[in-house]
Amino acid sequence: MKIVALAGGVGGARLAQGLAQCEVDLTVIVNTGDDFTHLGLRICPDLDTVTYTLAGIANREQGWGVADETTAMMDQLRLLGGEDWFLLGDRDLALHLIRSQRLAAGERLSGVTASIAARLGIGARILPMTDDPVATIVQTPGGEIAFQDWFVRQRAAPSVTGFRFAGIETARPAPVVTEALQAADAIILCPSNPFISLDPILAVPGLREAIPEVPVIAVSPIIGGQAVKGPAAQLMRDLGHEVSPAGIAAHYAGLLTAMVIDDADAELAARLPVPAKVTQTLMKSDADRAAVARACLEMASWTS
Amino acid sequence: MKIVALAGGVGGARLAQGLAQCEVDLTVIVNTGDDFTHLGLRICPDLDTVTYTLAGIANREQGWGVADETTAMMDQLRLLGGEDWFLLGDRDLALHLIRSQRLAAGERLSGVTASIAARLGIGARILPMTDDPVATIVQTPGGEIAFQDWFVRQRAAPSVTGFRFAGIETARPAPVVTEALQAADAIILCPSNPFISLDPILAVPGLREAIPEVPVIAVSPIIGGQAVKGPAAQLMRDLGHEVSPAGIAAHYAGLLTAMVIDDADAELAARLPVPAKVTQTLMKSDADRAAVARACLEMASWTS
Repeated sequence: MKIVALAGGVGGARLAQGLAQCEVDLTVIVNTGDDFTHLGLRICPDLDTVTYTLAGIANREQGWGVADETTAMMDQLRLLGGEDWFLLGDRDLALHLIRSQRLAAGERLSGVTASIAARLGIGARILPMTDDPVATIVQTPGGEIAFQDWFVRQRAAPSVTGFRFAGIETARPAPVVTEALQAADAIILCPSNPFISLDPILAVPGLREAIPEVPVIAVSPIIGGQAVKGPAAQLMRDLGHEVSPAGIAAHYAGLLTAMVIDDADAELAARLPVPAKVTQTLMKSDADRAAVARACLEMASWTS
Repeated sequence: MKIVALAGGVGGARLAQGLAQCEVDLTVIVNTGDDFTHLGLRICPDLDTVTYTLAGIANREQGWGVADETTAMMDQLRLLGGEDWFLLGDRDLALHLIRSQRLAAGERLSGVTASIAARLGIGARILPMTDDPVATIVQTPGGEIAFQDWFVRQRAAPSVTGFRFAGIETARPAPVVTEALQAADAIILCPSNPFISLDPILAVPGLREAIPEVPVIAVSPIIGGQAVKGPAAQLMRDLGHEVSPAGIAAHYAGLLTAMVIDDADAELAARLPVPAKVTQTLMKSDADRAAVARACLEMASWTS
């Protein structure tokens, strides 16, 4: 069974790891709208979280970054007066250095990502949504803010009126992305932030059109009116959406075939526009992740 | 008293630190021929050794790099299949990242170096010999080799027929370099490698001509027929020079006013072409470094 998962960072990575535990041919298409250049390094937070998680070397405590991490570079950077608002662990730096050097030498992001994944023994295909530069811009009453500035430096404090994906008009999915989508038996929308993780992926011209007539299953990132992680709930409120699986379903209207929602939201299942599997969706252990993945596959079989 | 020291890496940095302990106005002009771009970072080994040493944060065990160093990035880089022949410590990376980013933004190396030194509370001026790119190329019977490739990757094993400083014809000393030299009361040639540390400095067009008629004192990097550190002795042999303070004096002929040589070479003093102070020149402790510095200043006073 060929599964394509669309993923942002932590939640997406965890479900991807669950899917990787199942007997499926897995492709993960990852948001690159959060990518930015910092200290001269090209940083791709979502790609890295997915890569580290699938390689089994993610930092489980913080959710992002690599395990057994240290901060000697950041400590020295602070001493030297460098920009220290974005944490870059020592071990994590290796990936940023290798990627930045290869991109500067003209390699494509998809190629670099694939070779790193192969080196780490990852069986799934990890694909950036596009090899073209796309940058999520946060629209606020005080003006536009670059994504990481808003998210990390300003801790997502400025209220949001919308998002813009700079460069999206001329971006194209890499051929491997289109091919993976066209060959898919089911598409999984991971429990990632709909506005800043999955919307950029779906906004790449030609990407959404490449999704075939197969089940599209979303796992709700909202549980009991709250986001498991990150600003999803606050953003849904700010942007006038219902902070619930129903709000998520409405957001993906026209695309969605079925959902997987948490036990905490069981009573909502009946008023969702698509069938929903109700289960425990918090993904802490490997077993949790595999269970949510199996729920997705079950809904995919059931609706196909 | 205005002192300008010409320095390479470890030996130069140690004498510079000795001079910084004396009551002098100190400028250190540093070799940049060893500089190279690695993993996308601009690395300036001699500038960094001088900077770390004058800041009191050098790694005393290995002579180069910064104290309390760790290697998490290198360990991860090796795991990811990156180039691991040139060691970059975690803490050390901060300086390379800051410098690379600022140079890419159009700043000059002399400006970046000065601001880092100021940040670290260094009183002396540390100046790269030039802001223009110059690359030491090692000429061997098997062809030309980039300096760090020869020195680090090949552990200085290939025999050497000569050196070439690529870019030197169009390089110019920064105005601060020329001004420091013209204002100097004495010039100190640090006990650095004559061929690969001080020759590139003296080869920058206009730099040697800016040295005024003041005492020029060399501290011999050769003690008892051996180099304190690095390939100086082997290179002198390969290139047909006498491996002794006399060979050093001959190398700097026309420039030198006096020398400081080690007790081990006392018997050579009489046949040197310039007056020599004989003393203990190994610089392990801060006190050793200050003592050699005072010997230089004494010879400068005595010959001026």
